[in-house]
Amino acid sequence: MRHLMSPLDFSVEELEHLLDLANDIEQNPEKYAHACDGKKIATLFYEPSTRTRLSFEAAMMNLGGKALGFSSADSSSASKGESVSDTIRVVSCFADICAMRHPKEGAPLVASLASKIPVINAGDGGHQHPTQTLTDLLTIRSLKGRLDNITIGLCGDLKFGRTVHSLIEALVRYPNVKFVLISPEELCIPDYIREDVLKASGHEFEEVTRLEDALPKLDVLYMTRVQKERFFNEDDYVRMKDFYILDKEKMKLAGPDMLVLHPLPRVNEISTEVDSDPRAAYFKQVQYGVYVRMALILTLLEVKVC
Amino acid sequence: MRHLMSPLDFSVEELEHLLDLANDIEQNPEKYAHACDGKKIATLFYEPSTRTRLSFEAAMMNLGGKALGFSSADSSSASKGESVSDTIRVVSCFADICAMRHPKEGAPLVASLASKIPVINAGDGGHQHPTQTLTDLLTIRSLKGRLDNITIGLCGDLKFGRTVHSLIEALVRYPNVKFVLISPEELCIPDYIREDVLKASGHEFEEVTRLEDALPKLDVLYMTRVQKERFFNEDDYVRMKDFYILDKEKMKLAGPDMLVLHPLPRVNEISTEVDSDPRAAYFKQVQYGVYVRMALILTLLEVKVC
Amino acid sequence: MRHLMSPLDFSVEELEHLLDLANDIEQNPEKYAHACDGKKIATLFYEPSTRTRLSFEAAMMNLGGKALGFSSADSSSASKGESVSDTIRVVSCFADICAMRHPKEGAPLVASLASKIPVINAGDGGHQHPTQTLTDLLTIRSLKGRLDNITIGLCGDLKFGRTVHSLIEALVRYPNVKFVLISPEELCIPDYIREDVLKASGHEFEEVTRLEDALPKLDVLYMTRVQKERFFNEDDYVRMKDFYILDKEKMKLAGPDMLVLHPLPRVNEISTEVDSDPRAAYFKQVQYGVYVRMALILTLLEVKVC
Repeated sequence: MRHLMSPLDFSVEELEHLLDLANDIEQNPEKYAHACDGKKIATLFYEPSTRTRLSFEAAMMNLGGKALGFSSADSSSASKGESVSDTIRVVSCFADICAMRHPKEGAPLVASLASKIPVINAGDGGHQHPTQTLTDLLTIRSLKGRLDNITIGLCGDLKFGRTVHSLIEALVRYPNVKFVLISPEELCIPDYIREDVLKASGHEFEEVTRLEDALPKLDVLYMTRVQKERFFNEDDYVRMKDFYILDKEKMKLAGPDMLVLHPLPRVNEISTEVDSDPRAAYFKQVQYGVYVRMALILTLLEVKVC
Repeated sequence: MRHLMSPLDFSVEELEHLLDLANDIEQNPEKYAHACDGKKIATLFYEPSTRTRLSFEAAMMNLGGKALGFSSADSSSASKGESVSDTIRVVSCFADICAMRHPKEGAPLVASLASKIPVINAGDGGHQHPTQTLTDLLTIRSLKGRLDNITIGLCGDLKFGRTVHSLIEALVRYPNVKFVLISPEELCIPDYIREDVLKASGHEFEEVTRLEDALPKLDVLYMTRVQKERFFNEDDYVRMKDFYILDKEKMKLAGPDMLVLHPLPRVNEISTEVDSDPRAAYFKQVQYGVYVRMALILTLLEVKVC
Repeated sequence: MRHLMSPLDFSVEELEHLLDLANDIEQNPEKYAHACDGKKIATLFYEPSTRTRLSFEAAMMNLGGKALGFSSADSSSASKGESVSDTIRVVSCFADICAMRHPKEGAPLVASLASKIPVINAGDGGHQHPTQTLTDLLTIRSLKGRLDNITIGLCGDLKFGRTVHSLIEALVRYPNVKFVLISPEELCIPDYIREDVLKASGHEFEEVTRLEDALPKLDVLYMTRVQKERFFNEDDYVRMKDFYILDKEKMKLAGPDMLVLHPLPRVNEISTEVDSDPRAAYFKQVQYGVYVRMALILTLLEVKVC
């Protein structure tokens, strides 16, 4: 039995299979509409994340299955002091597969060790959120046709943004990916990513401060939020924040095929006037998130559809 | 694609179709049991309303569909500052139709403008709650056989009661409806309803203070809650409140066919001793609420059942 | 129409039928996979109990049905002051059967009197939790082959532990059951159980303070939590608590076929090193909990499967 804890749990080849399956689901939803009839997913969300939870539930329902679970620790027995190991042993009697969100790093891993059913890490603190990365990869591959030979800009809070770290780690496995890292100095990429991932893999990358400088050369722009409280002082925040807000004006600097991605929710880092730009792909990304979760559920449950 | 924001969104003719469909569902539930197989409703409740939420979920389930969503803002991403426009764009990837409850007036309308799926306003602050009005209309038409030629008493808090305002606006579209407005002076119908709706439409109406005075002439009595905190002072409340509590004794003043409706929940404004009176229709009303929501889902999803 | 308020609502004969049905479900799950197609359970949980709620929802889903409801009073209309009688009348329009958890003793009984659908008491304060008792009985009967002729040890907080009281009341209906009551003096079995249930029924029982003294003679050990706050003072708690923690060492004193049960959640009263012992049956117990709830739903809904 297999779990999903990190986006790197899948080899490049396994990942290709998963993304192929997701694309087949996209093309032929009817073919998969009963693949999980009679099966159940448990969504164990120890902290709220509506988008992720509903995406998993929708994915299982699209496959003919059902969903049960809880949406925050308050409404769970967690308050009675039960360990996640015990909880997952119990939930193993209720469901066929589980998606767990937990504020504590490593909690889904601990759960997976005790589990009788596949466990999907649906986000554990600042650590991993593998289905977001799978979603990002599927979106790029589907809309660009490839994961290699691209120049991707990653913009915003590159220091704390776990989706950015995971995406870099996933993409360095493909040849000829160039990274443009766009952030204020305070929020630049951590050393272990710069040294152990980017330099170690031999991929080309550059670090810039202004989004405008990066836009013209990008195939993909991955936007993230710059949270005010991350800055050392108010002045820096005020001085810098506009650099990281994507608007119609800045979009003029980008090429005609550049994709804009965002893990959502956004606050104001992408102006709503960009939404109608054909290059804006962040809502399509949500849809790909459902397809990739459907493919993941099928894969972990070893359900074959002919 | 069509949404439902206000009870007046449907013309009288469209409404007749909807109510006919609801009655056909009531008579032949089996015929509709798979009409929405494979479809999903998202119940996005930014404030709790168990009754309304479960009514929508039950309606979709009765049609063979499934439900997902959240039951309060706490357990949603709303706390992360996402706009309702973004939320509905995201949820459009998860579900086929959406029922949204929001404390802010107009929020469902804003959502509908960005949505890729039909949005039903399931209550927006003190503004509109159209499926309650549809429920009221279906209940009266089903049990009285008509929406015209009736005398309806509306009792309680007529000033702030949005269900009352909506029901009046819906009923003035039918000929020969007489309104008896029963309330303490402090809580009487607002001017814009009295002038722009009742007087403008030319319907007969009268305003009275005591329920006893109205009861003998009514075909339908629509009860609502009189909240203590609406009164200017405690004395007025104590002096008045019994006027607006319906009990066995007062029911003796009513005709043998008068229907008692109430949008629920009630606190004490209808004594439980009235529950067993055959004229008490407020629990039947809940059942009609499910039928009318089933009809609404089918209509907005343009699902035809032969 | 029948409800389930107390584990004694079923006669011994009816109980045998129910447990037989549960075992048939265990052996032939496919046979029952569509027994409740198109039916719905409402889980009305006025206080959170994830395990119990998910068990009911999983049970209904395993039968082909669906689930709706609420997981805590906060997200329900309870805050609007509605009575449980009114709530259940309303919910009767939404679902075919209901499981109600309530902090107030007797609330499910009050609900059942107004209900149009079968109500299952899913725990009412310190009073009753009948499906836990049914689960315990099914587990013992399935793994021991019988409910008579056993020696059962009940360990921990025997004063306040409602599952213990219910299990004793259920087991005295079988011949030749011996009870060993293991607890600190402060938490010993209440008089009404000792006198009116155990002595009155003529069953053999003894009361001991140390788990070690009991272990060698038991067929079944039923563990419960000893909550610190139940003790009169910290010293007593420290002195005593290890007596009631089951670990590998103590398990050596038990026979090779002794079953360990626990209603869960546990805190530390069973060391996790016991989990891999083949005699540990507390997670199997959770699975039996689903089977017995499936059998219960079928029985109360009078669904026959051939």
